[in-house]
Amino acid sequence: MKFEAPVAVTEIAAFIGAELVGNSQLMATGLNEIHKVTPGDISFVDFEKYYNASLQSAATIIIINKKVECPEGKALLVLEDPFSAYVKLVNRFRPFEPASKAVSDSAVIGEGTIVQPNVFIGNHVRIGRNCLIHPNVTIYDHAVIGDNVIIHAGTVLGADAFYFKKRADREVIYDKLVSCGRVIIEDDVEIGAGCTIDKGVSGDTIIGRGTKLDNMIHIGHGTVIGKNCLIAAQVGIAGKAHIEDNVILWGQVGVNKDLTIGKGAVVLAQSGVPSSLEGGKVYFGYPAEVASEKRRELGWVKRIPEIWDKVKSL
Amino acid sequence: MKFEAPVAVTEIAAFIGAELVGNSQLMATGLNEIHKVTPGDISFVDFEKYYNASLQSAATIIIINKKVECPEGKALLVLEDPFSAYVKLVNRFRPFEPASKAVSDSAVIGEGTIVQPNVFIGNHVRIGRNCLIHPNVTIYDHAVIGDNVIIHAGTVLGADAFYFKKRADREVIYDKLVSCGRVIIEDDVEIGAGCTIDKGVSGDTIIGRGTKLDNMIHIGHGTVIGKNCLIAAQVGIAGKAHIEDNVILWGQVGVNKDLTIGKGAVVLAQSGVPSSLEGGKVYFGYPAEVASEKRRELGWVKRIPEIWDKVKSL
Amino acid sequence: MKFEAPVAVTEIAAFIGAELVGNSQLMATGLNEIHKVTPGDISFVDFEKYYNASLQSAATIIIINKKVECPEGKALLVLEDPFSAYVKLVNRFRPFEPASKAVSDSAVIGEGTIVQPNVFIGNHVRIGRNCLIHPNVTIYDHAVIGDNVIIHAGTVLGADAFYFKKRADREVIYDKLVSCGRVIIEDDVEIGAGCTIDKGVSGDTIIGRGTKLDNMIHIGHGTVIGKNCLIAAQVGIAGKAHIEDNVILWGQVGVNKDLTIGKGAVVLAQSGVPSSLEGGKVYFGYPAEVASEKRRELGWVKRIPEIWDKVKSL
Repeated sequence: MKFEAPVAVTEIAAFIGAELVGNSQLMATGLNEIHKVTPGDISFVDFEKYYNASLQSAATIIIINKKVECPEGKALLVLEDPFSAYVKLVNRFRPFEPASKAVSDSAVIGEGTIVQPNVFIGNHVRIGRNCLIHPNVTIYDHAVIGDNVIIHAGTVLGADAFYFKKRADREVIYDKLVSCGRVIIEDDVEIGAGCTIDKGVSGDTIIGRGTKLDNMIHIGHGTVIGKNCLIAAQVGIAGKAHIEDNVILWGQVGVNKDLTIGKGAVVLAQSGVPSSLEGGKVYFGYPAEVASEKRRELGWVKRIPEIWDKVKSL
Repeated sequence: MKFEAPVAVTEIAAFIGAELVGNSQLMATGLNEIHKVTPGDISFVDFEKYYNASLQSAATIIIINKKVECPEGKALLVLEDPFSAYVKLVNRFRPFEPASKAVSDSAVIGEGTIVQPNVFIGNHVRIGRNCLIHPNVTIYDHAVIGDNVIIHAGTVLGADAFYFKKRADREVIYDKLVSCGRVIIEDDVEIGAGCTIDKGVSGDTIIGRGTKLDNMIHIGHGTVIGKNCLIAAQVGIAGKAHIEDNVILWGQVGVNKDLTIGKGAVVLAQSGVPSSLEGGKVYFGYPAEVASEKRRELGWVKRIPEIWDKVKSL
Repeated sequence: MKFEAPVAVTEIAAFIGAELVGNSQLMATGLNEIHKVTPGDISFVDFEKYYNASLQSAATIIIINKKVECPEGKALLVLEDPFSAYVKLVNRFRPFEPASKAVSDSAVIGEGTIVQPNVFIGNHVRIGRNCLIHPNVTIYDHAVIGDNVIIHAGTVLGADAFYFKKRADREVIYDKLVSCGRVIIEDDVEIGAGCTIDKGVSGDTIIGRGTKLDNMIHIGHGTVIGKNCLIAAQVGIAGKAHIEDNVILWGQVGVNKDLTIGKGAVVLAQSGVPSSLEGGKVYFGYPAEVASEKRRELGWVKRIPEIWDKVKSL
């Protein structure tokens, strides 16, 4: 997430109550989790084992819970609880704005787009031309939708990322990472009824051009889906997955977070994908394997009684 | 889908720009995909291997991409892209009509039926007597609902079929078959919260009398479900399946398209049904097999280490 | 479910047309299915094999279809169809009240709570302080929501229990047990988009303090979920399950009814839980077993061809 205008690192330090180490002349241009940082960004780290990754990332300003050596040209903001400081910044720079009406005045809706009754369109949403938004759809603030997009009834775009920090010492142990990313739906996408596509934690959840989603599909935060994919009903894809172009996922497939499904891969119905899959192949089962091999395995299972008979006869 | 009044085949030919071969006196009475055609219908075919099936079907008028011999008494409409011509006809004879209000003036709602707030009821919808439609339900145009039907909150009836033609030569490769079928809910059906039941491509998706659906169930386009079925939460049934009377599907079951589940069959939770199942039996697993056999198979899998020990000892 | 004020057992008997046997001075204080009865309650039994359980339960008044000996201090209400009599009482003491507006005047909403557009809040709903209810949420009558609760768009709280009595001799064979329980969401809970949490048949469905639900989760009637649980997208939990504190269920897990998942158990993605699981362990597969053992089993399956080769070589 990028700020509307750069903010002095000194102002950030004062706001979150941090000790500023390093370059105090810096201007922060955005706020991002470590997976999404670009130069100018503020990020945070609170586990020693991730210090190096964070300090060496593209982030210019790092909120950190120990006074370590500051890399050349960067700034550290040192305080006890970087996670809470980051959340405080999200709430300041992308505060939740309660709606005053069902279709926000700050939403921009293109020519030829039809919005059916009972639709909610949040603040700062942008929708392109010749779209059709069916009834009871909810589009949270800041979503961006291209041209010729169809969204069927009851679908929800931009609900919060499901992302919590565990605080074993508290009564309520899951502490929410407030998300400030967006949902981006490119041109010519169709989304079925009753789908949920979450916003990214700090970056964007993207559905690529020409991709078609059936009903009741869940897409987690920050997941990026390529162009011309076909996703059947009740598929679930966790956060920060990368589904490349021309992938086909059949019904009720489950896809883990933080993995890549390569271009043109096909995953058959009800399969579970725990880790990355190479493109261009057909997969099946849990864990998903090349379908022809998995079918052979199922055949072997059926032969166990025969093997046992043979063993007994020896 | 049947037209409100018959249309001359010559008018159809002119509208889609086709060469008319055969009986030019015919009147078209409807428009249907090949799986649903009845006499009087226009259908289309664009793959040579399906020519015979299409020409010999009940369809009276066939849109086709090659000038072949016309069966006696029928008419061919010859042009390069039958799929696009068919879509053009759907858009002409069942055009999408944007809603001007949440409950259409053209909807007919029976005596004693309660419609809760935030419900959308589209054009030409018919709802019987003594129904209860809970909040945030969406009923697309042309749906037909019987008497004593209960529909829980957030459910969507009549979203578009998930049906595309692949156009490998285009930038957006999936070309949508615009659907003109309906959803029909018979008397005494109860549908849980957050379900999605798609309209047929050209025919009807039907939920038979007395069938009860739990929450978050997906029913694909043109699927026909019999009477007195019991379907548990999160079941997904693909398009054009036929579920006969008294079938029970437990939670999270997935059912493939174009198959039949016979009368009284029971499919246990999380099973996957890739092909037709005989009635009167209990099934389990993926692929779903008779439950007692599948359980025996799971038992054999647990014995593999024992078999291995035995083999090593020989 | 408890009545607003006690009702004389003689009045109950007259209303349902039952013969009163035993203590005719009793006052009924509530109405409950057998799993939930407390002293003062009316319950019902219509199968001889459950007579003893029902007569010896905490229920003070039992609707029964045979004149048996009445336990000391209790009352029997004898008639032919106890199920229908019970439903008649539910409809009398907790009648469905059609909404006159989207947010009922009888709902109580705490200070600092934000209700976004297109939300439905039913009669007698109570919502605490500092909650955020996103658009197109439906909250059925009588639900109780604590403080600091976030409910994302399209979620449905309090739809009816999926619970039917089979009447083989009728045309419509599934006869509905009208539910009169509630949904209770404790403080600091977050519920994702497109979830459905059903009300209890007569008791409460409870989501414990600090528990976080992702999107499209189904929770059946009367299920009780403990504190600080984490439930990922598309999980389905059937009715009357008990999920203890600190349980983690990953995506697309299915959980059967009438079981307990012990404190701190973790169930990996797509697993199916047919029966109770001990706390503190990690589970996987269908049926869910201790993950390390299940992984070993998957390894053995892959070794079947090797075993076969060995057998052949003997």
